[in-house]
Amino acid sequence: MSNPEAPKVTCAPHVVKEELMAAGQWLKLEKMTYVDCSGSTRTWETVKRTTRLTNPSADAVGVIALLKRTLHKDCVVMVKQFRPPMGSYTLEFPAGLIDERESAEVAALRELKEETGFRGEVVGVTPVTCLDPGLSNCTTQIVMVNINGDEGENINPTQQLGDGEFVEVVLLPLDEFQSKIDVLLKKEDIVVDSKVYMFAMGMAQAFFKPMELPVLKQ
Amino acid sequence: MSNPEAPKVTCAPHVVKEELMAAGQWLKLEKMTYVDCSGSTRTWETVKRTTRLTNPSADAVGVIALLKRTLHKDCVVMVKQFRPPMGSYTLEFPAGLIDERESAEVAALRELKEETGFRGEVVGVTPVTCLDPGLSNCTTQIVMVNINGDEGENINPTQQLGDGEFVEVVLLPLDEFQSKIDVLLKKEDIVVDSKVYMFAMGMAQAFFKPMELPVLKQ
Repeated sequence: MSNPEAPKVTCAPHVVKEELMAAGQWLKLEKMTYVDCSGSTRTWETVKRTTRLTNPSADAVGVIALLKRTLHKDCVVMVKQFRPPMGSYTLEFPAGLIDERESAEVAALRELKEETGFRGEVVGVTPVTCLDPGLSNCTTQIVMVNINGDEGENINPTQQLGDGEFVEVVLLPLDEFQSKIDVLLKKEDIVVDSKVYMFAMGMAQAFFKPMELPVLKQ
Repeated sequence: MSNPEAPKVTCAPHVVKEELMAAGQWLKLEKMTYVDCSGSTRTWETVKRTTRLTNPSADAVGVIALLKRTLHKDCVVMVKQFRPPMGSYTLEFPAGLIDERESAEVAALRELKEETGFRGEVVGVTPVTCLDPGLSNCTTQIVMVNINGDEGENINPTQQLGDGEFVEVVLLPLDEFQSKIDVLLKKEDIVVDSKVYMFAMGMAQAFFKPMELPVLKQ
């Protein structure tokens, strides 16, 4: 005999149906039906890129590129551009969609070259991360890149922008990353990308508040 | 006489039209028409929340909550949940949409209480940041919160989840944040949020590679 007071058996939540609500050339709106942890069937509205590759590691890459030059402070290479969805300029890491059969590393060096003109060398790649998981399935991998700024190609870097692309390169010193961003935000009508600001906060947490870090506690 | 070789006059890019392609209850797809830096008129597909408030600071908040307990390492309070758009579990900071006439600070403490049961104290708030500015106009503010884990209410925290909400609280030590995330990702089929991983990388950058940081160079 079953006990009506017993808690519901939980199950592994899973998607059971994806219904197209509307599709443009680049984006589509879907109504997803899923079974939640309690076994109830629910719906959720989701946006996806129509351009997703068959078996991608991630949709896109972002690049944390460190420009190292003799007698200069190490600088993070940032990009400023007008973003139509935001209706404003943004401050972001160089970034872009990964092409078919392209690795995150190759995409990162390609996008860095196109958007900033710098030729870099990959030193690390993150796992696949999600950008706004309550809204979309969009993912990115962050690639860490070093740039030898004393190399000829990097002394006078030349952007390779596509038609309709307008990207301004902004160099910010690594050791004052967060404070220089804050100065830019005060001075200009610009929105900073959350990934940029979180990286800056992580560094500032460790730089400026060492006594608050348990690893350094006596 | 005009010179055909002269560069085009540049202008301040701006949005001129927003056309609804489709709207659900929560999300809508738009075709935006904008004028770019060269004066050319172009279009862009964009997703927006239908629930955006009239004059919000940001759509949502994320919470970096630090749990401080006597004789324990300081821990970052994380949440693990099934996210239909991703079709998988994610590891995120506690987060949620800001309510009408609610400040980011109040929203952060409310969401932290609902999702984790912890009562915290705000110690800082970021500027408004964008999440995926090539795709949507969605924004978030990150709120830094300290939790006194020795307080009665925080010793046995009780979640206040809504209908259909299932959130698992995950505590990760601040001083091993990135490595503990990497362990979780290896062990479980889970996707980490980019904001979380960027914060972890920022801290690791400063923690583990001090000799690479210009501020510490001799």
